[in-house]
Amino acid sequence: MQNNVDENLIEMMTQMGQRARRASRALSGVTTADKNRALLAIADALLAAQTQLLAANAVDVANARARGLDAAMIDRLTLTPNGVAQMAEGVRQIMALPDPVGEISNMVFRPTGIQVGQMRVPLGVIGIIYESRPNVTIDAAALCLKSGNATILRGGSEVAATNQALADVIRSGLKAGDLPEDAVQIVPTTDRAAVSILLGMHEYIDVMIPRGGKGLVALVTEQARMPVIKHLDGVCHVFVDEQADLDKAVAVAVNAKTHRYGVCNAMETLLVHAAVAERFLPMVAPYYFDKGVELRGCPKTRTILGESVVAATVEDWYAEYLAPVLAVRVVDSLDEAIDHIETYGSHHTDSIITESYTTARRFLREVDSASVMVNASTRFADGFEYGLGAEIGISTDKIHARGPVGLLGLTSQKYIVLGDGHIRG
Amino acid sequence: MQNNVDENLIEMMTQMGQRARRASRALSGVTTADKNRALLAIADALLAAQTQLLAANAVDVANARARGLDAAMIDRLTLTPNGVAQMAEGVRQIMALPDPVGEISNMVFRPTGIQVGQMRVPLGVIGIIYESRPNVTIDAAALCLKSGNATILRGGSEVAATNQALADVIRSGLKAGDLPEDAVQIVPTTDRAAVSILLGMHEYIDVMIPRGGKGLVALVTEQARMPVIKHLDGVCHVFVDEQADLDKAVAVAVNAKTHRYGVCNAMETLLVHAAVAERFLPMVAPYYFDKGVELRGCPKTRTILGESVVAATVEDWYAEYLAPVLAVRVVDSLDEAIDHIETYGSHHTDSIITESYTTARRFLREVDSASVMVNASTRFADGFEYGLGAEIGISTDKIHARGPVGLLGLTSQKYIVLGDGHIRG
Repeated sequence: MQNNVDENLIEMMTQMGQRARRASRALSGVTTADKNRALLAIADALLAAQTQLLAANAVDVANARARGLDAAMIDRLTLTPNGVAQMAEGVRQIMALPDPVGEISNMVFRPTGIQVGQMRVPLGVIGIIYESRPNVTIDAAALCLKSGNATILRGGSEVAATNQALADVIRSGLKAGDLPEDAVQIVPTTDRAAVSILLGMHEYIDVMIPRGGKGLVALVTEQARMPVIKHLDGVCHVFVDEQADLDKAVAVAVNAKTHRYGVCNAMETLLVHAAVAERFLPMVAPYYFDKGVELRGCPKTRTILGESVVAATVEDWYAEYLAPVLAVRVVDSLDEAIDHIETYGSHHTDSIITESYTTARRFLREVDSASVMVNASTRFADGFEYGLGAEIGISTDKIHARGPVGLLGLTSQKYIVLGDGHIRG
Repeated sequence: MQNNVDENLIEMMTQMGQRARRASRALSGVTTADKNRALLAIADALLAAQTQLLAANAVDVANARARGLDAAMIDRLTLTPNGVAQMAEGVRQIMALPDPVGEISNMVFRPTGIQVGQMRVPLGVIGIIYESRPNVTIDAAALCLKSGNATILRGGSEVAATNQALADVIRSGLKAGDLPEDAVQIVPTTDRAAVSILLGMHEYIDVMIPRGGKGLVALVTEQARMPVIKHLDGVCHVFVDEQADLDKAVAVAVNAKTHRYGVCNAMETLLVHAAVAERFLPMVAPYYFDKGVELRGCPKTRTILGESVVAATVEDWYAEYLAPVLAVRVVDSLDEAIDHIETYGSHHTDSIITESYTTARRFLREVDSASVMVNASTRFADGFEYGLGAEIGISTDKIHARGPVGLLGLTSQKYIVLGDGHIRG
């Protein structure tokens, strides 16, 4: 810890950590019914507190305007009556999900006579550092609570007033459900030093989850002294194979790029097998041009589609545009497509369009991404679409949880052993 | 990277990383038969190279003697003909285990019509930094290879010559099995700067596994820029409940402490419910005294057993003795026992001795350790005893893998999605 950090702040944060640890301990004994009652109480309290929440949010919005934040940012942090209702509905949906905690699996008798299996358990204390959207406060709190974890939330300073109002709502819900009020704590200061302190608190925080832009994720990865479940870039590909059904290919390639532009599971590079490029590219290009999508292509793409396609540079292969821009490359083989994906991709979501059983099987196995798809839009990479009920984010890590992280990703498994006085010989 | 680090060393390590990444890519397409053939070839090559291995090891032993290393250390690094045979047998056992890679689970149709499930995949490139025992080189290489990972191994400088001889053996086995020779690489220098460079190579190494003493684990945890699967202390407890069968309690308490002293799953603190302490402690103590185990007790323990028990201090509750020393504490309730375990324990392995269904159920649920046991010796916390076939270590982390880490712990799961031209609406 730096010497120039306020000692009072360190003391306050340490106490939050200790309270979270105690709350985590207390949560280990609570029933599913207890947790569900608290979640229902939080949903009800959200609706009941709508006036106060909107008033608090108005303060944040006024401050944001005064500080000259841009319209997109102000839009993200603005809470509406409908937004409050959606938060409440989200909490009810999480309440309705099956409780993952306590599930016992794989119990087997070993030759020694002991029975060995695994029990699903909460991770313990989860820290979440996130940016402006106030609904993250409620989503994250509800998911962590349902999965039996205590949580320390640190939201963006732009929504500080809203978050404190939400903290009151959550606290009242926990109280109504007879759960420890420290099961969800919200850092009550916008001091940036609090983030650095949190990231060093590995005695109290088991896992840190950053939710926000690359700057935030990089900061957390760099400084966190505990494991991090993180989401980096989404440089997603669709590869149109030589044996693709080109109608399906057009449908998926258009959907994956244009359904929404600013999302991590949008396609950023379209790969096309050389054997079908001359037929496929002129089929798909008009859809992009109609929607104002700028194409940046390799020389072969430009030969086929002409000068309206910008010449792509190597930066385009690496780019996560999050915008109406698409990189297009013609490749000579499945191997070249996979090489491109492994070289320039971000291991997020990649899809092949093919009718070939053998090619599909190889793509599924060899592409090392959190989601690998056949004949489906990358836009399906999402906790709700996968049936997780809700997600706390999409992990691009290799260990623990890959892809959309739902309740299971907020738990782990411990071994349990049952004996009858068994000793090791 | 520090400026004073040798540029040539950085260049060499970077190239190792790049080769490992390429090998990992190549391993994604290999069959179980390919991997098994390579493992069998490694086992055979170990036996065929016995003379060279023992000669290389003799150099390490002579150097260790010359440097005045202690007898225990020299014992750990000495390779015998029997040791070589055991390494070969270990590789054969790993070969015989089921291949975890490619297993597809939980495939379901979603309301949209897409099919979603998960495929088990290697982690990618695993770095292993370990201390003196040469068998770790072979065990780790075989486990990582079977689970489809590329590996970079960095062993202790005390066994540098032995490890280079083992590297030749592994390389010849990989060649015989037509696998990429860079699937297993051993850092060919004892320069300590190589460790720091490795720990910073997050572009090339997906997971780092330290195997060794606390100093090594602390160094890796502090410096690693990638996720770490680690094993810290084993402060294991046995709690003799008021409803324990005291004969079972004696058997387990003696076995858990005295079966082996220097292992992480040995009991370090015995907790005894006050309701049975006056009967139980005089039953068990003679076994400890017979074996020369020093007891360090709380005041109640000393009242019951007398002055032959040393007065315990708070340091004893935290201690991982790894020696014939046992801390003993009388507690008034199950809650007090769990509080003690959560306060002073290391979340490794804890066991309760009880005939009470309700108490056993609470202990199993509420004790937050990688292994939680009922009426069984903590010594069972072991990959072989759990049926994992082999282990690369025992994790005390909360995420990814808790407890003994076998082949499954060296893999992860990616999502796979099958569609028929499906797009998101």
